[in-house]
Amino acid sequence: MTDVAEGERRILVAVDEGEESMYALSWCLKNIVAQNSKDTLILLYAKPPRAVFTALDGTGYLFSSETWAAMEKYAADVADCVMEKAKKTCRDLRQDIKVETKVENGDPRDVISQMAEQLRADVLIVGSHGYGSIKRAFLGSVSNHCAQNVNCPVLIVKKPKTNAGSKCQ
Amino acid sequence: MTDVAEGERRILVAVDEGEESMYALSWCLKNIVAQNSKDTLILLYAKPPRAVFTALDGTGYLFSSETWAAMEKYAADVADCVMEKAKKTCRDLRQDIKVETKVENGDPRDVISQMAEQLRADVLIVGSHGYGSIKRAFLGSVSNHCAQNVNCPVLIVKKPKTNAGSKCQ
Repeated sequence: MTDVAEGERRILVAVDEGEESMYALSWCLKNIVAQNSKDTLILLYAKPPRAVFTALDGTGYLFSSETWAAMEKYAADVADCVMEKAKKTCRDLRQDIKVETKVENGDPRDVISQMAEQLRADVLIVGSHGYGSIKRAFLGSVSNHCAQNVNCPVLIVKKPKTNAGSKCQ
Repeated sequence: MTDVAEGERRILVAVDEGEESMYALSWCLKNIVAQNSKDTLILLYAKPPRAVFTALDGTGYLFSSETWAAMEKYAADVADCVMEKAKKTCRDLRQDIKVETKVENGDPRDVISQMAEQLRADVLIVGSHGYGSIKRAFLGSVSNHCAQNVNCPVLIVKKPKTNAGSKCQ
């Protein structure tokens, strides 16, 4: 485990389309990333799997291939939007930090836990209620899952209720 | 919410007799506390309530007042031991930081959550599996409870399995 003195920590931040993950990212940039450090910030977005869309339909209606394609396109656009917003947040707050991005397909709980190990993250930062209330009902709590299954320290950031912001979608 | 640039953050660290909370404290001192900052570290120890001791007995045997007194004395000694060890860890790693200590009676889940609000902590640091496996069976997971109920960011630190250490008791 590296530390502030040694620098070169790998800080993994799970981002999604909600305000809370952007707040978590800002908080991390202000409170975790050391001044003049060699920290690398890795922004990770998990594109929820098809099963979530199927569950959201709920009618048992079988989507056509065109509908699937449109939904895949939508998911890719959301991923782009989230990453652009996250990178802008990084640029606005810390121009000196090295930023990498990763978009992976799958259940966010599994994707984030696996990537934390695979990328040898020194710390994982997640919003308290990522992936929205509807998706969470199907996916379960991402932050809870990560806190229990990831070996590195996990920082769970809750957005204060008084702090207004704008959604990505 | 203050940040590194402004300094003067109030960092609340829940400590207990296990190795994991001391590891969490060390990690915090190395990774969260900024160099030359005005951060205040507040070490919090929650003395588990009598109900835990009663549950641990399990036989329905009614303890005598002498037994209760001995157990209270034991709990106070453990609290002292934990705090001394925690303060030494702070001194060893960061001599420049302001350290405060608090010992409160009650269910650690409630004590830590309440103190985080009451002390207006900017961040709460807890070990992943505080308060030992036996007590946890009765008390539930402290870190889970805090992550769900505390409004400030919560950092859950898991001690790597390869990193050996010594228990306080």
